[in-house]
Amino acid sequence: MSKGLLIVLSGPSGVGKGTVCTALRSQVPDLVYSVSATTRSPRAGEVDGVNYFFKTREQFLEMIEHDQLLEYAEYVGNYYGTPRDFVEKTLAEGKDIILEIEVQGALKVKEKFPDGIFVFLMPPSLDELKDRIKGRGTESQDTIDHRMSVAVDEINLLQHYDYAVVNDKIELACERIQSIITAEHCKIRK
Amino acid sequence: MSKGLLIVLSGPSGVGKGTVCTALRSQVPDLVYSVSATTRSPRAGEVDGVNYFFKTREQFLEMIEHDQLLEYAEYVGNYYGTPRDFVEKTLAEGKDIILEIEVQGALKVKEKFPDGIFVFLMPPSLDELKDRIKGRGTESQDTIDHRMSVAVDEINLLQHYDYAVVNDKIELACERIQSIITAEHCKIRK
Repeated sequence: MSKGLLIVLSGPSGVGKGTVCTALRSQVPDLVYSVSATTRSPRAGEVDGVNYFFKTREQFLEMIEHDQLLEYAEYVGNYYGTPRDFVEKTLAEGKDIILEIEVQGALKVKEKFPDGIFVFLMPPSLDELKDRIKGRGTESQDTIDHRMSVAVDEINLLQHYDYAVVNDKIELACERIQSIITAEHCKIRK
Repeated sequence: MSKGLLIVLSGPSGVGKGTVCTALRSQVPDLVYSVSATTRSPRAGEVDGVNYFFKTREQFLEMIEHDQLLEYAEYVGNYYGTPRDFVEKTLAEGKDIILEIEVQGALKVKEKFPDGIFVFLMPPSLDELKDRIKGRGTESQDTIDHRMSVAVDEINLLQHYDYAVVNDKIELACERIQSIITAEHCKIRK
């Protein structure tokens, strides 16, 4: 049995990680999605263990303390993190698992899981990324400038990744990621 | 421009390198085929520079002397080799080039071209390989045994390669090799 692979899909905010990840999962039903843990309350329709593992603050802090998270971060007063046991259990079953995560989180995962396949989703150009960030809504020029500067800093972290995939078209980006997964399964580990 | 890649397709005799290489070339017309140099005479229909670069023995020995071959071997009284300049010219143009070659030759190419992508085509099983070697014609049991023992020795050289591709079905083997090429173009070189 070929061992399962952890595929970490990351990239700057606005690049389309979520869209590409959703498309990929619909094309590759065998690909398991890494479900995050969070302390925020479930929204209508969200199911525990599917959308998130919903935890109390106490439970989450205990997971941190027992090194049960591959990474975690606090965002607008709530904790979000990647449970280690779900990833390890999936890989042990010989299944591939994909984790969609922002750049800083991916680098933390790499510290604990250097054997993961780290894929950086790239905008076709910085202009294109700016358009996508602008296109999201009615954000102020300051916010847009700030998010662009963060994105440029993140793109400079590219060399910590294994692969760069340009998200010019969702289907093409998905095909490239599927190729990377196929190739990694053929790779001779030394 | 993405730099061209040298893909070295190798594997034991009888595994189907030639068939897979031909199928791959018809599916990927942009993939350049590395044309060998030889001292043997052209057969009917063979074109210089397409099937082989036909050389005199003197020319070939001169190519060896000037390190113009990535590898060479003598076989049934004739020389065969891989001209370095054709490979380098193709890569410099940003094109991928595929070299189909037996295992010992591939390892010699690796010494001169460590950046190549070394793909080992595997039989689905040793029994399957034996059937293929037998199926070729009316070879004696001794010949079959000898070729099987060479094949097993060659399979033990797998760890010098980057990828192992099982040739269970030609289309599947081709898809895997295409995935490897796509993935390698996405790879971040460090």
